[in-house]
Amino acid sequence: MTQCDLNIGSRRMALLCDGHLDADFGKTATGLLIWCPEEVVAVIDVEHAGKTVDAVFGFGRDIPIVATVAEAFKLGARELVVGVATIGGVLVPAYRAKIAEAVRLGCDVISGLHEMLADDPELSSLAAEHHVAIRDVRRVPSTPVGMNRARTIANRRVLTVGTDCATGKMCTALALTREFTSRERDAKFVATGQTGIMIEGDGLAIDRAVCDFASGIAEKLVLDNADRDWLFIEGQGSIDSACYSGVTLSLLHGTAPQALVLCHVGDHHARSHDDGAPLLPVAENIRLYETISTPVLPAKVVGLSLMTNGLNASSAREAITRLEAEHGLPATDPLRFGVANLTDALIEFFEEER
Amino acid sequence: MTQCDLNIGSRRMALLCDGHLDADFGKTATGLLIWCPEEVVAVIDVEHAGKTVDAVFGFGRDIPIVATVAEAFKLGARELVVGVATIGGVLVPAYRAKIAEAVRLGCDVISGLHEMLADDPELSSLAAEHHVAIRDVRRVPSTPVGMNRARTIANRRVLTVGTDCATGKMCTALALTREFTSRERDAKFVATGQTGIMIEGDGLAIDRAVCDFASGIAEKLVLDNADRDWLFIEGQGSIDSACYSGVTLSLLHGTAPQALVLCHVGDHHARSHDDGAPLLPVAENIRLYETISTPVLPAKVVGLSLMTNGLNASSAREAITRLEAEHGLPATDPLRFGVANLTDALIEFFEEER
Repeated sequence: MTQCDLNIGSRRMALLCDGHLDADFGKTATGLLIWCPEEVVAVIDVEHAGKTVDAVFGFGRDIPIVATVAEAFKLGARELVVGVATIGGVLVPAYRAKIAEAVRLGCDVISGLHEMLADDPELSSLAAEHHVAIRDVRRVPSTPVGMNRARTIANRRVLTVGTDCATGKMCTALALTREFTSRERDAKFVATGQTGIMIEGDGLAIDRAVCDFASGIAEKLVLDNADRDWLFIEGQGSIDSACYSGVTLSLLHGTAPQALVLCHVGDHHARSHDDGAPLLPVAENIRLYETISTPVLPAKVVGLSLMTNGLNASSAREAITRLEAEHGLPATDPLRFGVANLTDALIEFFEEER
Repeated sequence: MTQCDLNIGSRRMALLCDGHLDADFGKTATGLLIWCPEEVVAVIDVEHAGKTVDAVFGFGRDIPIVATVAEAFKLGARELVVGVATIGGVLVPAYRAKIAEAVRLGCDVISGLHEMLADDPELSSLAAEHHVAIRDVRRVPSTPVGMNRARTIANRRVLTVGTDCATGKMCTALALTREFTSRERDAKFVATGQTGIMIEGDGLAIDRAVCDFASGIAEKLVLDNADRDWLFIEGQGSIDSACYSGVTLSLLHGTAPQALVLCHVGDHHARSHDDGAPLLPVAENIRLYETISTPVLPAKVVGLSLMTNGLNASSAREAITRLEAEHGLPATDPLRFGVANLTDALIEFFEEER
């Protein structure tokens, strides 16, 4: 199932992040820097220009940060990626001229915004003139309304869910996919958001679907991957978020997972993209997700993922141990400590299921 | 807040229902026939042509059913309404020629389909040529992502929710609005679906929103009606439906009601628009809706609505009494027995709240 021809593995990407590299918004760039740094030639951000990504963030190797599109092109960039995920998915106005410049230099453009760049008359005619492609990875195909068919598929489906937005749902699903693959299991990362799609090269951005058809998009992701043994499905939003809970529930009911991994951020106490409502406790989240899954297919939270940014290694390990004891579930920070324990727990869970 | 200029109160509508008058699909026509029969000139359906609506359905007065658009026009029709709500909202192919005929006769077209008729090059240029309007009531405006603001509005919000699709959520909200208005309360019906919008003349079709923005649409409906005392919000789908639960939850969290009325159909045991999964019991529905509302604003199910079609009056009353006893909540069939008891219960509930 390839929705977009992204030349996975042979890209030479420049990530356009001007002014947003250190904000929440930089999720797209961060995801690509963590999961496919070998395909990133440069990051474009005037504020940090001259440094390496690693020097600024502690990951992303020695990828250079440059100030202009022209510099990135000189370093070999052939795809310009819009590296920020704005609320509402609108184009940062100042980016328009930079995208046009990249097109004139012969770069393809990859965007995950709601605002479809290929539908922009100016950019699309410029792209045609310069024989380059504009790939809006968030564009979704027409599907029928979901018909509750995912639960009839016999493979193993693990959905990452969150206590909030930006809690590591994509990273956890990617880490699990790689760990299962390294253990010679047939595992597939099912991308449901723009960054995941850019990393995996396929998937569908469920939040872009017309609401009535969101369950159909989720169902399609499962039906199209029915021949894969293990699906690790990238979760979206959170069930208690007034902003995005509809996306979350469409994905949960539409993909009908048997197992969930709940993702949490250690120092996170108020919901993002909100007026600051307090986060529900982890235990309450577990109860809500399990309860609301039951009408379609009862799902169980089998493990926990904890982002421990800002803690030193020993404090991070302590926080994880505390979380495990509190909930009687294995926990980890996937990026720091791997997901071996979650993998063991998931294999055991599905063996008991059969 | 008027999203579409529908000339409420002075329309002369013909409802196009060919082949679908007696099916589930006829929801749009049925709604208009029940709630604004004085504005319906004729129903177009070749199968039942020659009869009156009342003779076929037991409601809808002596409105004639005719076979052709031309006959409806002769009876004075000046608006053609696409009277069916197909799954996926696509145009019944055979309707295209009939719509074109109505346009040529000078009728406006009102449609609630997902397929936007005004975007159809053939129909839109024909409409321009004949100086008529095509009004797609399901079209939604761009809104920001919801920001969890509805719960901060001080008015009284009652959302109708369902044990399934097509359980009388719109009718219950409309009946409550009329009853509250007749008791000289300031009450507003908040339409969230195409038929409700056609009846009320304003509202927003939440299921048409891009999923990420569905909560923003719901929030806008509350913010735009912040000056009204009582809002009766038309519910959509059901929380346990794999097909539409995302729409349902976006609406619940986005409008942040304090009170819910749960709508059920007496002889309904398997979910519609599904592979026949069994319905959850009413008590389980109450628990799920109340639980999932809590993270945003805890809502309570204050009353029950039961569609008793197919039962005689005394059996219907018995079924309602049984339901009341079982759940300790007032119940009624709004169309047969009115909503006085639900109205009393809601007034009492909000008095206790303050």
